[in-house]
Amino acid sequence: MTDFQAAILHQVGQPLAIGRVTIDRLERGDVLVRIMASGLCHTDLEVIDGSLAYPMPIILGHEGAGVVEAVGEGVEDIAAGDHVVASWNPHCGHCFYCRRDQPILCEPFTWHQPRGHLLDGASRLRAGAQAVHHFSVVSSHAQYAVVPRSGAIRVPREIPFDRACLIGCGVMTGVGAAVRVAAVQAGATVAVIGCGAVGLNVIQGARLVGAGTVIGIDRDAARRDLARTFGADLAIGAVGEDVDAGVKAATAGRGADYVFEAAGSAEGFRLATEITRPGGQLVFLGKVNVSQDVSFRWGALMGEKKITRSSYGGARPERDFPWLARCYLDGKLKLDELITARLPLARINDGFDAMRRGQTIRTVVQPWDAAGSP
Amino acid sequence: MTDFQAAILHQVGQPLAIGRVTIDRLERGDVLVRIMASGLCHTDLEVIDGSLAYPMPIILGHEGAGVVEAVGEGVEDIAAGDHVVASWNPHCGHCFYCRRDQPILCEPFTWHQPRGHLLDGASRLRAGAQAVHHFSVVSSHAQYAVVPRSGAIRVPREIPFDRACLIGCGVMTGVGAAVRVAAVQAGATVAVIGCGAVGLNVIQGARLVGAGTVIGIDRDAARRDLARTFGADLAIGAVGEDVDAGVKAATAGRGADYVFEAAGSAEGFRLATEITRPGGQLVFLGKVNVSQDVSFRWGALMGEKKITRSSYGGARPERDFPWLARCYLDGKLKLDELITARLPLARINDGFDAMRRGQTIRTVVQPWDAAGSP
Amino acid sequence: MTDFQAAILHQVGQPLAIGRVTIDRLERGDVLVRIMASGLCHTDLEVIDGSLAYPMPIILGHEGAGVVEAVGEGVEDIAAGDHVVASWNPHCGHCFYCRRDQPILCEPFTWHQPRGHLLDGASRLRAGAQAVHHFSVVSSHAQYAVVPRSGAIRVPREIPFDRACLIGCGVMTGVGAAVRVAAVQAGATVAVIGCGAVGLNVIQGARLVGAGTVIGIDRDAARRDLARTFGADLAIGAVGEDVDAGVKAATAGRGADYVFEAAGSAEGFRLATEITRPGGQLVFLGKVNVSQDVSFRWGALMGEKKITRSSYGGARPERDFPWLARCYLDGKLKLDELITARLPLARINDGFDAMRRGQTIRTVVQPWDAAGSP
Amino acid sequence: MTDFQAAILHQVGQPLAIGRVTIDRLERGDVLVRIMASGLCHTDLEVIDGSLAYPMPIILGHEGAGVVEAVGEGVEDIAAGDHVVASWNPHCGHCFYCRRDQPILCEPFTWHQPRGHLLDGASRLRAGAQAVHHFSVVSSHAQYAVVPRSGAIRVPREIPFDRACLIGCGVMTGVGAAVRVAAVQAGATVAVIGCGAVGLNVIQGARLVGAGTVIGIDRDAARRDLARTFGADLAIGAVGEDVDAGVKAATAGRGADYVFEAAGSAEGFRLATEITRPGGQLVFLGKVNVSQDVSFRWGALMGEKKITRSSYGGARPERDFPWLARCYLDGKLKLDELITARLPLARINDGFDAMRRGQTIRTVVQPWDAAGSP
Ligand SMILES: [Zn+2]
Ligand SMILES: [Zn+2]
Ligand SMILES: [Zn+2]
Ligand SMILES: [Zn+2]
Ligand SMILES: [Zn+2]
Ligand SMILES: [Zn+2]
Ligand SMILES: [Zn+2]
Ligand SMILES: [Zn+2]
Repeated sequence: MTDFQAAILHQVGQPLAIGRVTIDRLERGDVLVRIMASGLCHTDLEVIDGSLAYPMPIILGHEGAGVVEAVGEGVEDIAAGDHVVASWNPHCGHCFYCRRDQPILCEPFTWHQPRGHLLDGASRLRAGAQAVHHFSVVSSHAQYAVVPRSGAIRVPREIPFDRACLIGCGVMTGVGAAVRVAAVQAGATVAVIGCGAVGLNVIQGARLVGAGTVIGIDRDAARRDLARTFGADLAIGAVGEDVDAGVKAATAGRGADYVFEAAGSAEGFRLATEITRPGGQLVFLGKVNVSQDVSFRWGALMGEKKITRSSYGGARPERDFPWLARCYLDGKLKLDELITARLPLARINDGFDAMRRGQTIRTVVQPWDAAGSP
Repeated sequence: MTDFQAAILHQVGQPLAIGRVTIDRLERGDVLVRIMASGLCHTDLEVIDGSLAYPMPIILGHEGAGVVEAVGEGVEDIAAGDHVVASWNPHCGHCFYCRRDQPILCEPFTWHQPRGHLLDGASRLRAGAQAVHHFSVVSSHAQYAVVPRSGAIRVPREIPFDRACLIGCGVMTGVGAAVRVAAVQAGATVAVIGCGAVGLNVIQGARLVGAGTVIGIDRDAARRDLARTFGADLAIGAVGEDVDAGVKAATAGRGADYVFEAAGSAEGFRLATEITRPGGQLVFLGKVNVSQDVSFRWGALMGEKKITRSSYGGARPERDFPWLARCYLDGKLKLDELITARLPLARINDGFDAMRRGQTIRTVVQPWDAAGSP
Repeated sequence: MTDFQAAILHQVGQPLAIGRVTIDRLERGDVLVRIMASGLCHTDLEVIDGSLAYPMPIILGHEGAGVVEAVGEGVEDIAAGDHVVASWNPHCGHCFYCRRDQPILCEPFTWHQPRGHLLDGASRLRAGAQAVHHFSVVSSHAQYAVVPRSGAIRVPREIPFDRACLIGCGVMTGVGAAVRVAAVQAGATVAVIGCGAVGLNVIQGARLVGAGTVIGIDRDAARRDLARTFGADLAIGAVGEDVDAGVKAATAGRGADYVFEAAGSAEGFRLATEITRPGGQLVFLGKVNVSQDVSFRWGALMGEKKITRSSYGGARPERDFPWLARCYLDGKLKLDELITARLPLARINDGFDAMRRGQTIRTVVQPWDAAGSP
Repeated sequence: MTDFQAAILHQVGQPLAIGRVTIDRLERGDVLVRIMASGLCHTDLEVIDGSLAYPMPIILGHEGAGVVEAVGEGVEDIAAGDHVVASWNPHCGHCFYCRRDQPILCEPFTWHQPRGHLLDGASRLRAGAQAVHHFSVVSSHAQYAVVPRSGAIRVPREIPFDRACLIGCGVMTGVGAAVRVAAVQAGATVAVIGCGAVGLNVIQGARLVGAGTVIGIDRDAARRDLARTFGADLAIGAVGEDVDAGVKAATAGRGADYVFEAAGSAEGFRLATEITRPGGQLVFLGKVNVSQDVSFRWGALMGEKKITRSSYGGARPERDFPWLARCYLDGKLKLDELITARLPLARINDGFDAMRRGQTIRTVVQPWDAAGSP
């Protein structure tokens, strides 16, 4: 029996409570991971604040890295001691969507995940007598997590855990949006609305595949500076600035070949359609409440434009996570610059507070101290 | 000098006036076509009613077929006597968009077309001393038209002109949306919103490439009958019917693999996003006023959906028009059933009146009587 | 314990021997299928004749249809009584190739299959004390077969078993080559070299997705007649005929847009490259011995041509088998015409003899008599 | 009348002769370019040595850069003083292939080019009374060249002519093969056979779009060093080395995801098929005599591999040349390292001699001295 500390959300609007959780036994296909670092993502905050509904109590966190501690029956290609990053999109490999090459829509995943369960429809987590829910089949804001085999992705041992964990959500989502989803053509012009964790990774993803001019757009001056650090040729979007005119000026009046919305606001979606050139491609990465209306000027949807929604950057984690780790180790991908703060698990609420104030790119919690103790 | 009858729009909101027009001479690259049949399309009506602004006076009509009468300098691969269908998307072959395989966005075309000019920026049409404007580089509601070489597409002589002309807009737009733009996969489920000329052609296009279940959606019972005639397995959409539930029932609860909006209304666009399955593809064919807002439930845009706007079905007219004519001649494409009425040019306003009343699929005007005289 | 009749190959070059085989128990993920019909495919013959090496004794047959009799642990989405067609490409869903959308190359499959084992590396079949090998993870020339869950594909109950079984190899391979692998464009010209079971299905697959001119090529007059029956506009290839000239004559001198080699000969491969137009696409479906050399005129490989090898028509069996069955039931796919003879299992060697003489398209063995007894 | 020095090939096997050539007048659509630098390409040598037949006398050279001196009638979007790189694939924009997005196969181009003519079927070049032929619609081994508008591609003025000229053939062909034709996926493994001008550019093209491991293969040690300079992680291929084993060792035994043959030998083509992983993609860039046979082990063509022939890297010169120039100016593309020697036009035969000895990557001739005089 594994008994460990975890940050538990008991009720919407409350702070996370550090408590003890147990895992009684591993089922077939399970992988038990000792979590060494876990990134705080905006989606966690949506659950805390109630805009995204999940069953409680729940352990949040879906951007985790650590070491395999044990495996369940039938798991033969990964072993205790392996370094892994969690994928929040484990998939069955055989459903309607898996056999159409869209594992992100895997039916067991989309059925069980919102119910706070693993892919077999059950929870492994317990606080005393009470079942605790899994979040996005990861729950990494804890000292241990149980994930399905296809959610535990081996990465090179050389990459430190605090940087590795970022690959699991924000980096994959942003880099993948440019590289896998839009498949940005070398030489093309790219505009990115919203230069937070995802947007900055879109920028560096576009750079990685040879984009021409890259334009970062953000109201916040510090984020515009970061956009330049991550490879934007141009960073605009200060309050009062005419962004549409700025993009047109940089693109011979046509608009950008590719536009990525990573701000997650109705204004961002609308702006994105206005600054895409005729025949261009636009990817929605941000999100608002599912029941909220978003509106567009019809003329901005014309001109043979293509719009794609992507939630995980076209991730194929077994292919992409080791590659992204390798890019970091080879100096082609910036991860250090994404980390605003490192905190012990006990201070996780401070991290969410900073996120609410818009002061962070990524906060990483480390559930064990340097000596390997909690 | 060619002197002929044409239906001229002098002012928004007025009926077309039959008047005499002259063409003094052909310029380099021009093709003079004796128009034998010209279809009335909803886009013409938008100009008459003022929702689409064009310079006046203008000769409408962009769905024409006829016989080449003469050619200008440098035109060597088409000759007097050839049967042709007009393409409303002549293109230069060398601009920013042409060299990115998007001739529909050709820059000389998109610059000169809205100004009522041919691709060289001039008009060839004159009514007495006054210049008359070209409409969409075609102007087929007349006994003659001058079009650029790339707008005159040779078709087999066996296809009658009244059916051939339809290929030039509605048929290409609808069939092409299914076959070229969405590239509907054999076996896939297709839903079509709006079963007018374009929607019916989406249906038969989907059939042509082996679609599985095809669902036609229209409020009008007569159009739902036509949808079945053109190949829909199911036709729904009566007032009061729950369309969303109907589509879900036919698709194991998922929504359609491909959805085409061919109704041109804000409600249609919105419905389209709701009935597309996660990971599905959606094509906007209809249109509303460019400055009008259209709105969507954010949740309906999620789920990895792809949205494409298409205005001409991915047309490559030299490849597609002869192929579509051949499909008709081989019994694989219905054209006869699209024609509601045939009228002499002098009665063209009756055709637009019927269109306003929603009573037609296509009216075709024939500018010459059976004896070949006007 | 299941005890049943099977046709067993004990040694290369010998006739199959009808013997009794037992299955002791089903393992996790197994599906036990009562085989009602099994098609004789050329690949079986390659094993009998020794050009394709497999461990012995082995039960051949990889094109089978029947009824689910029982399922192993963990199989929940298929049940006794379901009608199924066997897929000879079960896949793991998670290996290097599966996560690159190439399940045909699945690593557990390509490792265990040539060794005569199921995907877990073991055999379930025993003749007395001796282990018997599985062929292509199917072994349908028998009254029962054990296949992995992803190798048992449910199809509508309305399709008779003798026609259903064909979907499992020849139909999928041929139709899929046109529809999924080459994705033949509507209106395009298609040439098919070799009008046996696979070639005829390429022809009807091309028709299904709206191909323009389809040309069947075979030396045998009866097969050229069949090519016309399956939808070829033109059938050529008699001994002494200039095939290259014939194809060029039908394609304005350019060659075909798509060429499929389904004859499986070095001459066929070479011819295929010669009759593909510049910029055209060519698919190799036939095969010769893996160690045999095939040669081409370099000039015939130039001109921006694309060549693809496909062994199973880009099959996604769960998506494609029910769709193909539905096409047959809707009258869009010919299966009856593919069946040359039906034989009881005991006469299976007669079927292979006829195949050796080139007299058959497909022979189907039926391991149970009309009364359901062997 | 323009009267200038040119290197003329009068007969196969002879050295080029420096002589005087005249251009009497520009026709419609012509662009007269003062050539400042012209690269020596292997294709030139094939003509000199007779393995590629062209009409004589002829001015070779198809990799040229210079300044627009004058333009013919109808040329309005380029002007005297513009810096240009010649494209050896001008195209009509409207033929069978141009409207299928394959301008490299443009029919007027493929008809007139081998006849030594411009796209209108005539020559503009004369030596005394004798017509002189154009080579690949460029003929840049001279002080002036006449090219069609679509063969004169404007580039930034900042790039020096001797580096700019390389973009016109070897750089475009190599970089484009990786970036446009194969569309190498970020993270993928790439092997390049033959590390001359084209192969080195494949290597840097693969790097530009984020390839993972890149392997250069060449028998020559100096070229293997260059491969490393241009970005190969590994360079193998010394005489006696087992290349197949080397590639497999670097790719977990599978073979490379992408393989490019840029050596132009029957052995190279054969090796390429052996080292491509199942499901991988292979591009033939090199060439041998069109009538020569090339052979493959059938087994090496299996495994769902794709083979594409490309001759110009999927070039869209107006999109790609300015982009490549910009990459050079931004330090992302190596051009300086490609230039082995610079020679005055009068010493051009020395350049071809060095090429015959295999001692060069690129020799560039400069037809004007530093003072701008010949
Ligand atoms: Zn996240
Ligand atoms: Zn799944
Ligand atoms: Zn229209
Ligand atoms: Zn254009
Ligand atoms: Zn078979
Ligand atoms: Zn697999
Ligand atoms: Zn060259
Ligand atoms: Zn052309």
